[in-house]
Amino acid sequence: RINADRLWESLMDMAKIGPGIAGGNNRQTLTDEDGEGRHLFRKWCEDAGLTMGVDTMGNMFMTRPGTDPDALPVYVGSHLDTQPTGGKYDGVLGVLAGLELVRTLNDLDIKTKHPIVVVNWTNEEGTRFAPAMLASGVFAGIHTQDWAYDKVDAKGKRFGDELVRIGWKGDEEVGARKMHALFELHIEQGPILEAEGKDIGVVTHGQGLRWIQCTVTGKESHTGSTPMPMRKNAGRGLAQITELVHEIAMANAPNAVGAIGHIDVYPNSRNIIPGQVVFTIDFRSHELDTLNGMVDRLMAEAPKLCDALGVSFEAEIVGQFDPPEFDHGCVKAIRDAAERLGYSHMDIISGAGHDACWINRVAPTAMVMCPCVDGLSHNEAEEITREWAGAGCDVLMHAVVETAGV
Amino acid sequence: RINADRLWESLMDMAKIGPGIAGGNNRQTLTDEDGEGRHLFRKWCEDAGLTMGVDTMGNMFMTRPGTDPDALPVYVGSHLDTQPTGGKYDGVLGVLAGLELVRTLNDLDIKTKHPIVVVNWTNEEGTRFAPAMLASGVFAGIHTQDWAYDKVDAKGKRFGDELVRIGWKGDEEVGARKMHALFELHIEQGPILEAEGKDIGVVTHGQGLRWIQCTVTGKESHTGSTPMPMRKNAGRGLAQITELVHEIAMANAPNAVGAIGHIDVYPNSRNIIPGQVVFTIDFRSHELDTLNGMVDRLMAEAPKLCDALGVSFEAEIVGQFDPPEFDHGCVKAIRDAAERLGYSHMDIISGAGHDACWINRVAPTAMVMCPCVDGLSHNEAEEITREWAGAGCDVLMHAVVETAGV
Ligand SMILES: NC(=O)NCCC(=O)O
Ligand SMILES: NC(=O)NCCC(=O)O
Repeated sequence: RINADRLWESLMDMAKIGPGIAGGNNRQTLTDEDGEGRHLFRKWCEDAGLTMGVDTMGNMFMTRPGTDPDALPVYVGSHLDTQPTGGKYDGVLGVLAGLELVRTLNDLDIKTKHPIVVVNWTNEEGTRFAPAMLASGVFAGIHTQDWAYDKVDAKGKRFGDELVRIGWKGDEEVGARKMHALFELHIEQGPILEAEGKDIGVVTHGQGLRWIQCTVTGKESHTGSTPMPMRKNAGRGLAQITELVHEIAMANAPNAVGAIGHIDVYPNSRNIIPGQVVFTIDFRSHELDTLNGMVDRLMAEAPKLCDALGVSFEAEIVGQFDPPEFDHGCVKAIRDAAERLGYSHMDIISGAGHDACWINRVAPTAMVMCPCVDGLSHNEAEEITREWAGAGCDVLMHAVVETAGV
Repeated sequence: RINADRLWESLMDMAKIGPGIAGGNNRQTLTDEDGEGRHLFRKWCEDAGLTMGVDTMGNMFMTRPGTDPDALPVYVGSHLDTQPTGGKYDGVLGVLAGLELVRTLNDLDIKTKHPIVVVNWTNEEGTRFAPAMLASGVFAGIHTQDWAYDKVDAKGKRFGDELVRIGWKGDEEVGARKMHALFELHIEQGPILEAEGKDIGVVTHGQGLRWIQCTVTGKESHTGSTPMPMRKNAGRGLAQITELVHEIAMANAPNAVGAIGHIDVYPNSRNIIPGQVVFTIDFRSHELDTLNGMVDRLMAEAPKLCDALGVSFEAEIVGQFDPPEFDHGCVKAIRDAAERLGYSHMDIISGAGHDACWINRVAPTAMVMCPCVDGLSHNEAEEITREWAGAGCDVLMHAVVETAGV
């Protein structure tokens, strides 16, 4: 069994870096705070005897050697970056659980045949630089590195420049590493495990995602002196598409979700009718046909709504992945571990996207989930219990050790 | 007649300060650019023999002496600050037309009984610091100076501090000056004069205004893993209220208008359901009952919409004025001047708020309007012709001189 108190202490120590305003964290990718978090993680890993490799996307690989020099490593990890109003566990738990299982193996003096590598993926959240899971996506060959480097944040700063600025651009070629398997522990970020009273979610599938960035263009003009019939109010385009997105999601619920999280209004002045609104729709489903059907309906109906308002509609896909199905062997290793350890468990579909969803394309992969209070995540009030974290880390360790061999 | 070419040249010179990105201006109040614009205006005024007074709200008063030492001055002016995506004429025309009429009186060696004071009011636009017409409002005793000083911009900077920072906090007590009358020339910012083929609008009334800042609060959570029935999406509150505002305005058109120009979404991340949206509704009508009726309907219906969405609704009035009726004598002076000079003219209601609307509470006041192309304003593409500007300034001069006496 892992040391749940030590794991919890590390979680609390990491949470001191980039504190939020309401008990959570704001440690967005490639900020100074991200850099500070990486340094702390590196120090902990080196204290545990791991050696570091960093690739040109800033992904950190901390290696515990195996006994067989020819065996490919088993990877375990997640991400240390957070949302602007993020919780203390989303991503962080998976990285520090990887560290904790290594610490436990050290304590018990257990050697594995395959090396174990604890990984921290860069920019999982995708808030500052869309899309999410950017660096694991480059690792898996989904995106090119140049494309990723050219992503800009809201202030126009380039991903590639910011990576250099915080000093975490390494020299390893991205994706050159081969993996025996990869495991990721993550909080559920949804309400199912808690509601069902289960300690462990054995993730068999994930939802696919489409991020559609829309630009509705009208004509900015004076809110007081422009007669109603002459208005081209881009804000009404946003309003009607907000409701359309909700309708489309509800028509496919419970097998789909949809919402608009990001909205920029131009020029955003109280006495100017919005001339342009840029916003991103997030559609998800674990059924590929459902997902594509939602996008099709949006693309058919949104332009008509905008037409009727005298505003124009443009759309661009800025993030997408199809519903992943995880490796049966890895999934079984997790289910067996939970069973063996006596934790209550159930199979589950991941509502969120994770680095494991991309790595699944290039290596046998699976995920463990633990509950979170009220299913709340992407909120500073995100909470889990020490016991849930400990159970998840226990199952993770057993699955990793079984796969890595003793 | 005034010198329309000289007036135009001054307009173009002022427009070089704080250029926008599409041919207009971004010279928002109390920015460095605002300071620079004030210095240029001061230099021009001093070259024309005027002497400066500045009050503790930064209002600039440039005096041409009269022949009667006991006579109260006739004021003429408007504002030099612009919207973030403002035009070259909104406000600026009224200030520089005041300067041009003084230059013309100098050329013709005409002395008036009453002094003439050209005025530049601070923060008419209200974008950076709400409400609009802030400093003329303090002058007229509508707001206290302390209240105005404490207004903060989106970055948390105080009006009072920014006024000191740009070096334009004067020492005159605000509102201590007494006025014989005040005249303001402004572009219409609407389509009526151009459509009717008139050179001059004789402004008899203005629209009243209510700015209602609304805060819709839901619960930010993960867009992927939060089941549809568990969502408290503040963005849907915004969407439904956007349409409600439009409906309310349409139900009262053409005697009213309404829109939402300013929207801030929190935390504004693609994969977070909006937890809070803050936005400002702008309702206007020249009929007080209509205006109040619109606010009442909003306050009755918006909370119900939000209730049904599981989000909360709060509202605060952040700007308001009742529909002004201008001084009959001053209005007549404008109408007579237009008639005498042979310009086509019509009576008109101002769609926008103006500094003259507040000064109207403490002194006999009226406004002249000139057309603008396509009624477009609060847009960098705002345009007028040299002839329209010249005609407006001619009428302004005649009304001012008649009121000031020769
Ligand atoms: N786990 C997580 O929140 N990842 C961000 C990508 C997503 O929006 O699903
Ligand atoms: N003239 C003008 O645009 N003033 C700003 C106040 C308003 O919104 O009417």
